[in-house]
Amino acid sequence: MGMKLDHIGLVVENIREFAELLRAIGFREITEAVPFDAFNVTASFVNAGDDADVCIEILEPTAENSPIWTFLKKKGGGLHHLCFEVDDIEKTSRELADRGFQMVAPPLDCRAYDTNLQRECKNASRIAFFLVSKKLLIELIEKGR
Amino acid sequence: MGMKLDHIGLVVENIREFAELLRAIGFREITEAVPFDAFNVTASFVNAGDDADVCIEILEPTAENSPIWTFLKKKGGGLHHLCFEVDDIEKTSRELADRGFQMVAPPLDCRAYDTNLQRECKNASRIAFFLVSKKLLIELIEKGR
Repeated sequence: MGMKLDHIGLVVENIREFAELLRAIGFREITEAVPFDAFNVTASFVNAGDDADVCIEILEPTAENSPIWTFLKKKGGGLHHLCFEVDDIEKTSRELADRGFQMVAPPLDCRAYDTNLQRECKNASRIAFFLVSKKLLIELIEKGR
Repeated sequence: MGMKLDHIGLVVENIREFAELLRAIGFREITEAVPFDAFNVTASFVNAGDDADVCIEILEPTAENSPIWTFLKKKGGGLHHLCFEVDDIEKTSRELADRGFQMVAPPLDCRAYDTNLQRECKNASRIAFFLVSKKLLIELIEKGR
């Protein structure tokens, strides 16, 4: 299906405080947090190392009905999902559903991703969420162009 | 400190069964599991996508005194740690400890990593573990040469 790791989602209590920890261990490229209202979250991206094309996404819920609220309150946050880039999110989502993988969120526009990473594109990036197993949540992303 | 993401550690109940799920979503490059006795684990590596230089490490505990045993039994497994490559693991470990980060495991040889990824080197790769926060465990790796 041609997936490539794009970023790792990490849920934290407070993005600003967590960004300070990341700076203390040597990570300097951290984007300003951008809200994504569809999921009531706000997120920053951190480049995962020199010339890495993978990022760490630091996520903070902005309301109790955010899908990451319970994960933060019950587990204290932590590593949450892996996001893979795909060429055609509708096609890959159909294939995963056909193979029996549970769709957690169907494809939807995520302009926040483009804003966050300063991507200028006509069409917004689109994302979807699936469970590979009970304990592995993946996100798909088709990047806007 | 010059860290670069090398792999993401994922704890599973059964590597073979989990590898089947990964194959079903399109990942074909999965190494044979290699045991690492110092931590009572066995691990396979999965290339995280075309020309990605990041892997997903699938880990399974092999005994009850494995450091990932409780994580598997209490939480059911899942995303466990992020591993970053560094040039000098002794130096980076000292720097992290000096900055107040908790060392979970001091640097030790990990020939299993080299065997797993078919790296031919005189000196084994060396790994260490630190907590960045209560909920983010990182591994450092200085690759053998």
